[in-house]
Amino acid sequence: MNSIVPDMQLSKRLFTELAAPYEHQTGITRDAYGPGEQRAHELFVASAKALGLEIHQDAASNHFALCRGLDDTLPAWLVGSHLDSVPQGGNYDGAAGVVAGLAAIAGLLAAGITPQRDIIVAAFRAEESTWFPTSYLGSRSALGQLQAEELTVPRADSGRPLSDHMRDCGGDPDAVAAGHSWLGQRALCGMLELHIEQGSTLEIENLPIAIVTSIAGSFRYRQARCFGEWGHSGAVAKEHRHDALMAFCELTLALEREWSTLETEGQRATVTIGQIATPPAQHAFSKIPGEVGFCLDVRSESPEILTYLEQFLFGNAERIERERGVRFDLGPRTASTPAPMSTVLTDRCQMLASGLDIPHRLLPSGAGHDAATFSKAGIPTQLLFVRNQNGSHNPNEAMQLKDFAEGVRLLAALIQE
Amino acid sequence: MNSIVPDMQLSKRLFTELAAPYEHQTGITRDAYGPGEQRAHELFVASAKALGLEIHQDAASNHFALCRGLDDTLPAWLVGSHLDSVPQGGNYDGAAGVVAGLAAIAGLLAAGITPQRDIIVAAFRAEESTWFPTSYLGSRSALGQLQAEELTVPRADSGRPLSDHMRDCGGDPDAVAAGHSWLGQRALCGMLELHIEQGSTLEIENLPIAIVTSIAGSFRYRQARCFGEWGHSGAVAKEHRHDALMAFCELTLALEREWSTLETEGQRATVTIGQIATPPAQHAFSKIPGEVGFCLDVRSESPEILTYLEQFLFGNAERIERERGVRFDLGPRTASTPAPMSTVLTDRCQMLASGLDIPHRLLPSGAGHDAATFSKAGIPTQLLFVRNQNGSHNPNEAMQLKDFAEGVRLLAALIQE
Repeated sequence: MNSIVPDMQLSKRLFTELAAPYEHQTGITRDAYGPGEQRAHELFVASAKALGLEIHQDAASNHFALCRGLDDTLPAWLVGSHLDSVPQGGNYDGAAGVVAGLAAIAGLLAAGITPQRDIIVAAFRAEESTWFPTSYLGSRSALGQLQAEELTVPRADSGRPLSDHMRDCGGDPDAVAAGHSWLGQRALCGMLELHIEQGSTLEIENLPIAIVTSIAGSFRYRQARCFGEWGHSGAVAKEHRHDALMAFCELTLALEREWSTLETEGQRATVTIGQIATPPAQHAFSKIPGEVGFCLDVRSESPEILTYLEQFLFGNAERIERERGVRFDLGPRTASTPAPMSTVLTDRCQMLASGLDIPHRLLPSGAGHDAATFSKAGIPTQLLFVRNQNGSHNPNEAMQLKDFAEGVRLLAALIQE
Repeated sequence: MNSIVPDMQLSKRLFTELAAPYEHQTGITRDAYGPGEQRAHELFVASAKALGLEIHQDAASNHFALCRGLDDTLPAWLVGSHLDSVPQGGNYDGAAGVVAGLAAIAGLLAAGITPQRDIIVAAFRAEESTWFPTSYLGSRSALGQLQAEELTVPRADSGRPLSDHMRDCGGDPDAVAAGHSWLGQRALCGMLELHIEQGSTLEIENLPIAIVTSIAGSFRYRQARCFGEWGHSGAVAKEHRHDALMAFCELTLALEREWSTLETEGQRATVTIGQIATPPAQHAFSKIPGEVGFCLDVRSESPEILTYLEQFLFGNAERIERERGVRFDLGPRTASTPAPMSTVLTDRCQMLASGLDIPHRLLPSGAGHDAATFSKAGIPTQLLFVRNQNGSHNPNEAMQLKDFAEGVRLLAALIQE
């Protein structure tokens, strides 16, 4: 098999320029629909233009770079990922998939190959739900799926609605609300997303690439609270306390224990409480906490396990409420269903990777990705993982360019056909 | 026995005026060495002057009202408490003991009685260590015990040092650092503090008054942290996680369980974690917490139980560090030793209360009080509890004036002798 040589000079330059604004900061903060993400989109547009690609901006200010194929009546390939990051995150989560699309096309063009089909490289907005508490804002708006009310959701740090932030970045929220979609006008033969693994399986098993079988679903409570009774830390006897924090700790450890039990039974899930705080205006070192706020994120590839764990959560919260005289208010719920990858594409990737001598394995994804949006829309979708170091969503996130190059080789082999 | 009738009109007026500035706020916030406490001191000074008492202000801006007795060569009685409160606390924690002193003297004067000895009513500063992380700032400075370095400690909310706040309130921090003490020039026959119970024992047993036997000691870690490893909430497998929050929950519940065990063995203690937070600049709903900050407050009347629980804390923190790959940094430690009350005064109080038909019981104090400062200085000290409702250090704190009147009757009987 002829292997396309990815443009690694371009890749290296793009990763360097993406990271440059954060040289003197802790980690990378490309804020969704904010200056951080916007700079990355401007870099994408300039780089794609330099490759001679056509640029399209949709109503949500997602950007697309079109490489014309030989037959524009054929459904096109879509290759891409997101350019935002979590606060103080890493340089590769999201951006690697966008750079991969450009590096693959640059490799094709350098080899003098005009692909059979149109290839669209997508740079999506706002995948990290840290900023706006909704999943896949950018990719869903690209398919015209965003609901009008979602445009009113405030950004976690600024408190300003998505519509305002979108307008700041050149978007047209009214058109988004009306369902306008540039991408929706195109027939797609498949969506391909390259992404760092974010976990440590490939690193531990010494493999550069994984071909993903499914993306986990989830349920989330982002504004959960436990209410107890404020009291003096020295004066209230144990049997008269209603300590909100102790109740929270009991619920948390019950969930962790149940998760352990499921793992020993061969079931996969993750349980994470990413944020917790006693209310600063009321708490004190010498007060029994009468309130604690927290968020909960539970994920699994199995809808049954998600249902089971949520029922376990409810049951234990009720038990702890009775036993401790506290009250849990889990607040608004968000959820996503698991998204399977295309078995046709998964098989094809395995065959191509073997032909290209790229060591690989199959792996499910515990994290959500824009690819899930396309899987759910019925478009054949394939997610590829590249080995990375030190996890993700943290400043120490790392990726070796030689591993990235293997992923882009596989991607290029897929889209040149 | 002739019973002095406390001046309940004065008491009612003072409690009302103390609460007035907070009518449209949640709870009472008399900030230590800030405007809230300062207003209360000004009210105390004005009210004492109206009773014809002599006012003295010491270097730390504690205030004293002197009622001259028949024989000024005799050691004087000291009666008092503090005027600050926790943020969003109640109106009686502290202030009741100051009002009680004035109400008792007003009762004596109204009955035409000149007491045998001088009586000094004290309004101390900064007893609540929420503001400055040090115990009994006001009463210790009244005895010239404050160390120069303690004057540099920043107030939790403002970040400004104690010395600045003290100067704002008319104090002279240099004189405090040099050990100047107005009160230290006086021989004292005893220190008496009336205080709301803050717990629910008197309420449950339907008694207005308790005569305290001892004040609990404590150890505190106000800036403890647990460090784990930040990671993606969906992508890191259970066995590769180092979740700082889960580790914290395990340590917390281990302490709570050990406390339960001690109680079933008849030992008394309290274990409270009043504040907790994942770091807002780094945490996210979709990140495994790599850090959590918290504070710990453990109290007991028994030095042995304090030592036992602190060793238990260390042992369990080390075990959890090993098992979970996390690290606890407990940070600076503060501690106080238990302070026994004067058995002579305790016996005398019991006898007088019986003679005055005041239902009462003996009770240890889990909370710290200014009385502990005087006990530790070798001055015969007696703390009296008045029944209260809804605990303390919270906006719902309550006290019935008829219960307060019983406490002041007992106080007046003691000091008129």
